[in-house]
Amino acid sequence: MRHFDELLNDLRNRLVAMSGLVQAAIRESVRALAEGEDSDLKTVRDREAEINRMELEIDGITTELLALEQPVASDLRFITAAGKINNILERIGDLAVNVAERSESLFRHHAKIRTDVPILAELAESMVKRALDAFINKDANEARAVLLSDDAIDELRDSVFNELIGRMKKNAQSVQPCVDLMFAARNLERMADHATNIAEAVVFMVEGVDVRHHHVQVAN
Amino acid sequence: MRHFDELLNDLRNRLVAMSGLVQAAIRESVRALAEGEDSDLKTVRDREAEINRMELEIDGITTELLALEQPVASDLRFITAAGKINNILERIGDLAVNVAERSESLFRHHAKIRTDVPILAELAESMVKRALDAFINKDANEARAVLLSDDAIDELRDSVFNELIGRMKKNAQSVQPCVDLMFAARNLERMADHATNIAEAVVFMVEGVDVRHHHVQVAN
Repeated sequence: MRHFDELLNDLRNRLVAMSGLVQAAIRESVRALAEGEDSDLKTVRDREAEINRMELEIDGITTELLALEQPVASDLRFITAAGKINNILERIGDLAVNVAERSESLFRHHAKIRTDVPILAELAESMVKRALDAFINKDANEARAVLLSDDAIDELRDSVFNELIGRMKKNAQSVQPCVDLMFAARNLERMADHATNIAEAVVFMVEGVDVRHHHVQVAN
Repeated sequence: MRHFDELLNDLRNRLVAMSGLVQAAIRESVRALAEGEDSDLKTVRDREAEINRMELEIDGITTELLALEQPVASDLRFITAAGKINNILERIGDLAVNVAERSESLFRHHAKIRTDVPILAELAESMVKRALDAFINKDANEARAVLLSDDAIDELRDSVFNELIGRMKKNAQSVQPCVDLMFAARNLERMADHATNIAEAVVFMVEGVDVRHHHVQVAN
């Protein structure tokens, strides 16, 4: 069992490290938007490559843990939750690259449009962090709180979208930068959706209760 | 072992049924765009609810199979691939609802803009079908062919985007419908990405080779 426990611990530590990289990538993906600085696209791409490597390693560990011996129910739930969270973190890394590409396009075109996209990024980053804390602490209450905070993101996304559509109608010159900002906003909102998926996996792991699909998803 | 084999078979059959529902949902999600008919939004939403139920049931079966007894290596790879594919099919169902919402918005606003979005839908549906056939037939070659067909989708998406951006610049009235079409196109392209994720899981299941992250993703 020693080897099994060590592997479990290793799995937990690696997910914490991966989550830190993902949070940094989210932050960096909007820096060019938020602060008018040069793009962090290369940094975000490097982080994503690192995240991808970690995903493969963690998948290897979960497979090994499942194959090694029959895990008891609670360990099995931890391992399957960790496997899901691992894949979700990787997808958030991909989204961060997409956001960074849009940020760079905006920076390159000297388009300065003030929006709440950086606030969306902060909210998304915080949801990912809280969802992973809930996983590490096996805290179903915190996970449920993450599920509730998704509404704030959706409202902010709607208001950003409406503002951008208004701008595009008024000014043909702003179409391309506004499209960039819409996709950035959309990708940040999807990160928040992924954070709720992590939170759902945590509730299931802790309580054995499946809370997926209990609210109709209308995001787009 | 009888019970174990029955469960494995049940798992396979359910995934085939779920894949059929997902393909139908993709087709229906663009009908309002493609044929100028009234929206199938309600049909697609009903299908998604059914897909969500199937996802939970299939997750229950994979968990039971993992807990029941130590599966041998090839069964373990089949079960973990099935679990991944199950979650991916559910996400494709969500995307079909998003596309159907955009289609309905276009229909409601009597916006008739001819684009290649319906062709994107056909390509996405065919990729999902081929990826699942590859899973059922344990056919790594077919799975690799699915991975290659993703480029055609990306090219078509780029040409649709460029056309829509041009229209928006020329005509402020077309901004809202063009945004609807952009998000429809984007969601269809993401379905195709998910089909490649299914194909990657199939290659891993059959050959034990992880082909993820061997090409840089630039989709947005």
